[in-house]
Amino acid sequence: MAGQPREPGRTTTSRVLAILETFESAPGPLQLTDIATTAGLPLSTVHRLVAELEQWGALQRGPDGRYQVGIRLWEIGQNAGRRLRDIVHPPLQDLFDLTHETVHFAVRRGTEVIYVDRIYGSRRVPRIARVGARLPLHPTAVGKVLLAYEEDWFREAYLAHALERRSRYTITDPRRLARELEVVREDGYAQTQEEIALGLCSVAVPVRAPRGDVVAAVGIVLPSVRFAEIPRFLPSMRGTVVRLEKLFRGLPQPVEQAIRTFWLGSSVERKQ
Amino acid sequence: MAGQPREPGRTTTSRVLAILETFESAPGPLQLTDIATTAGLPLSTVHRLVAELEQWGALQRGPDGRYQVGIRLWEIGQNAGRRLRDIVHPPLQDLFDLTHETVHFAVRRGTEVIYVDRIYGSRRVPRIARVGARLPLHPTAVGKVLLAYEEDWFREAYLAHALERRSRYTITDPRRLARELEVVREDGYAQTQEEIALGLCSVAVPVRAPRGDVVAAVGIVLPSVRFAEIPRFLPSMRGTVVRLEKLFRGLPQPVEQAIRTFWLGSSVERKQ
Repeated sequence: MAGQPREPGRTTTSRVLAILETFESAPGPLQLTDIATTAGLPLSTVHRLVAELEQWGALQRGPDGRYQVGIRLWEIGQNAGRRLRDIVHPPLQDLFDLTHETVHFAVRRGTEVIYVDRIYGSRRVPRIARVGARLPLHPTAVGKVLLAYEEDWFREAYLAHALERRSRYTITDPRRLARELEVVREDGYAQTQEEIALGLCSVAVPVRAPRGDVVAAVGIVLPSVRFAEIPRFLPSMRGTVVRLEKLFRGLPQPVEQAIRTFWLGSSVERKQ
Repeated sequence: MAGQPREPGRTTTSRVLAILETFESAPGPLQLTDIATTAGLPLSTVHRLVAELEQWGALQRGPDGRYQVGIRLWEIGQNAGRRLRDIVHPPLQDLFDLTHETVHFAVRRGTEVIYVDRIYGSRRVPRIARVGARLPLHPTAVGKVLLAYEEDWFREAYLAHALERRSRYTITDPRRLARELEVVREDGYAQTQEEIALGLCSVAVPVRAPRGDVVAAVGIVLPSVRFAEIPRFLPSMRGTVVRLEKLFRGLPQPVEQAIRTFWLGSSVERKQ
């Protein structure tokens, strides 16, 4: 029977999800054997389940026989993720019009920043953070903002773990990072200089939810040689934040709740 | 046993997919009972499968106990859909800079247009087509372009079916639509005037893949009162197309293939 698990405790659902999981980090389309190896499943099982997933549209088979995630999953995700993007996109687009620099809007998910929206033109900086990408909090300006305004227990827990080095300028000394986060709270903005990647600098400001907690950050990324220009972007960034916070205050409570759950996870997860 | 199907021929996989399916058209978060009813599954089954989906992150439970699609599915979809958007976004952004009108890039999927990317500011027209949305081909300018340049068998099959009326100006007479599609091929662009919704007009131009077939369209949407302005947008739209087609020609064949499979579906599907 198709639905019957072979190993005790491993359900068909967990196998289907293990198959989808292989595509999370896949650079491109995968062969059945790649999927089976990564998912740790028998090829016969993968063959059967992939066929069902393909038929529904969760996966697609290319002419070369390799599989990739299907457009139907993309559509379901778009539909789920759109609420917040629909709100933040116009003000972010106007910030781009003012600055013509790469601008983005990010939230914290666990110990990472996740990029909700990003606007850039052809004159753009190397793409480190695309929409949907996750990065650690400490080497990014949006992440520093989100860390600086988090509850003490969370910030202390984050600083207690080893700080991943992303470039030779990443701040990996917890005491130095803690001091910088104090300055972020005093100044109301965070900046980075080649801390996530050489050649890039960035600046970010906090965005507050109606209940007052900082839930997101608006950031701008520049070539690091233009680090000195950062202050001139702050007024327009703060103008964007004022508009965003006004829009958030106008949301019906259930909508705000749905947005919170999707982008920030359950309060349980936030405490983990 | 968790994985064991209750009804003959209905596998656990098909049930998991039926659960995800309930979220495709959901206006917001759903209760377990809503999911069970829509998916046609016993509440106990839904309860068990949803718990597994939630644990993995495919679904999320809000504080009100309702479920919605989880951010993890959004991330997988983003990752799968990004290749084409990464290519089209900068030229589209530059078209927006030139026009400051709502611009979009769409492909044909079956008998519908699907919006791959869309750029708009705060001065925007009513949102009919968001990224990920599907619309019929005949009432939209991008759709008319994709229909006009399709193979005869497809166009004839499309025209042979009843043409859905979206507004009182939607062209539902197949002979009239066929004549207009000829004009689209002669002029190299399509336009609509209140055919998808009252108050809106639009214009679109074709985008060709390296092998020469029209696979996408670039469009601009305006308030219908500005219909007379449409011609002045054509030069910049054609400039955007030239850039896009150059970018597509520069793609490695496997990447172009992966993009085709994801966005256009298998050639089999295209023949259906």
